[in-house]
Amino acid sequence: MQVNGHHQRTIQARTDGRISIIDQTCLPQAYTRVSIQTSDEMARAIRNMQVRGAPLIGAAAAWGVALAMAEQADDESLAKAIAELANTRPTAVNLHWALKRMQTLLQPLSEIKRAEAAWKEAQAISDEDVASNRAIGETGAALIEELAAEKSDGEAVNILTHCNAGWLGTVDYGTALAPIWLATERGLKVHVWVDETRPRCQGALTAWELRQQGIPHTVIVDNAGGHLMQQGKVDVVIVGCDRVAANGDVANKIGTYLKALAARDNNVPFFVAVPTSTIDWDIESGEDILIEERNGDEVRQLNGVEVYPSVTEVSNPGFDITRTRLITGYISERGLLRKLSDLDVEETEPAEVAAA
Amino acid sequence: MQVNGHHQRTIQARTDGRISIIDQTCLPQAYTRVSIQTSDEMARAIRNMQVRGAPLIGAAAAWGVALAMAEQADDESLAKAIAELANTRPTAVNLHWALKRMQTLLQPLSEIKRAEAAWKEAQAISDEDVASNRAIGETGAALIEELAAEKSDGEAVNILTHCNAGWLGTVDYGTALAPIWLATERGLKVHVWVDETRPRCQGALTAWELRQQGIPHTVIVDNAGGHLMQQGKVDVVIVGCDRVAANGDVANKIGTYLKALAARDNNVPFFVAVPTSTIDWDIESGEDILIEERNGDEVRQLNGVEVYPSVTEVSNPGFDITRTRLITGYISERGLLRKLSDLDVEETEPAEVAAA
Repeated sequence: MQVNGHHQRTIQARTDGRISIIDQTCLPQAYTRVSIQTSDEMARAIRNMQVRGAPLIGAAAAWGVALAMAEQADDESLAKAIAELANTRPTAVNLHWALKRMQTLLQPLSEIKRAEAAWKEAQAISDEDVASNRAIGETGAALIEELAAEKSDGEAVNILTHCNAGWLGTVDYGTALAPIWLATERGLKVHVWVDETRPRCQGALTAWELRQQGIPHTVIVDNAGGHLMQQGKVDVVIVGCDRVAANGDVANKIGTYLKALAARDNNVPFFVAVPTSTIDWDIESGEDILIEERNGDEVRQLNGVEVYPSVTEVSNPGFDITRTRLITGYISERGLLRKLSDLDVEETEPAEVAAA
Repeated sequence: MQVNGHHQRTIQARTDGRISIIDQTCLPQAYTRVSIQTSDEMARAIRNMQVRGAPLIGAAAAWGVALAMAEQADDESLAKAIAELANTRPTAVNLHWALKRMQTLLQPLSEIKRAEAAWKEAQAISDEDVASNRAIGETGAALIEELAAEKSDGEAVNILTHCNAGWLGTVDYGTALAPIWLATERGLKVHVWVDETRPRCQGALTAWELRQQGIPHTVIVDNAGGHLMQQGKVDVVIVGCDRVAANGDVANKIGTYLKALAARDNNVPFFVAVPTSTIDWDIESGEDILIEERNGDEVRQLNGVEVYPSVTEVSNPGFDITRTRLITGYISERGLLRKLSDLDVEETEPAEVAAA
């Protein structure tokens, strides 16, 4: 996407063998790129959420393995890098998907071939993410086009989104926001309600992205979405996801479930943008998805400023589960799915299905 | 309630003819009392939310009229004070209820009698609020007692609350928190999930009150409540209200509706603490309640720190409507009501009903 008018990816290999990332903890105040030199540094960047968003975490982990192989390509180094990277964010399935893919490729290779193969594979994972997200955008833009057809001339389609499932959460395009970019490319008029998404206020990232692309948007507190739906001010909800169970239950940023309930109560369609790599076929239902409990200081502080005294007892679950019964459909790179079983599973994930 | 071990009311007349309030914008960082000398100052204190919470706003408005009468008791001064005070917070019905009560009393009186009568009436409104809230506490404590009976020994009843409907929102005891104080007095073990309640984070006030009384509690972001209910970690939701329509629909702090939806989805009882003065019999349903749109800087900033750049478009509705179908019952000073029509309306509001 564009930053100050120039095309950028969120993660890209540099000619000097380092990996350039955006330090997303500095956004929206500052757009800063950081060079990552080692697998350790990449693990730290994932844990600290300098890189964040399930698809980007997957690509970043792959680049982390590639950096480890460039330094030392023996079995011990490979196992160590994978274990350390896997340990950074327990809920993001893409992380494990990407690491497994790297391991499956690299383990059988002789040490001497691993560095180059790892580098190419990380690049392939990045490129596939871009292509996949663009396809999600096409599918979702068609949906927005349908909603636009019901509007009077000049009236925008109002889309509510939670957290940041934009360009910044992927290598390019994003997932939940990809339909918005492509709808805009098609000349459709949209307006986005941006949930601020406490505790970390990733809505600020979404607002920053929308501003960079010149798309009208309004930031709201997480409490406001239900009221807006009651008032008929939301035409559709589109969110991203961190992990999808085989039955279609979705783990996404804490608070997603509340918006899904409000959407159902007000007959607002509720879509989840789902790269099929986010589907964990090994997990039967949402009940079995591990929910990450994050550091309470994320709640106690905001942008480093104390909101609650440090003595305050805090709970900070990072995600919640939205049951498939509340989901109108899944916007995937393979088209719009009313339920996950519409996917040709054999074709999608042969290795996983065979293993299951 | 207790502050640092001493009993205090949120608003009290001083012997020098001023009114002492707590500057609640300084909480929880500092407990500061401020002296209010004029009706103008009181209107400003209400508008700036130095005093806040529907019942306290009612008492504060009454004291505002009393201050105006002490200064100048002619019809013009009375009309001006009432108009100015009525204009501060459009959604709070107690404000209008208290002002109407003051006007009904004062208008027929000769100028010379107004100052003393106004002072006595403001004191009576304050005292009645305290008695009413204590009665709400008794009703609600009985409910909590029922829930405690289903628990194993030593297990706390988990109560979720939104915004601050505690002591600070009233003259004393609070509404939604009154049952918690009285349950604790009865020796019941409770734990409170405190919604932080963006944009203004009144959850920080609730946490401060609970800490002052030594009651276990945990602050959560507004996004987390649904997840906690899915996990079976919430036994009951108790919230306050700013205005109740005749059909039982409730206007309360933005986000209340989302918690009511989650409660229904998880079979968690959802109660609203309702002083009957909060019921607006002239308003048929929630659809007819005016929702205040507040200043966007409340969202853009938190504790004076910028979260979103000032160019960010923001919407900031202050309240939402929770339909009566989502409400298990109303905890009133006249007992527990399954629906509002259980109230003996004739007895409650004869003047209003006759006027309708």
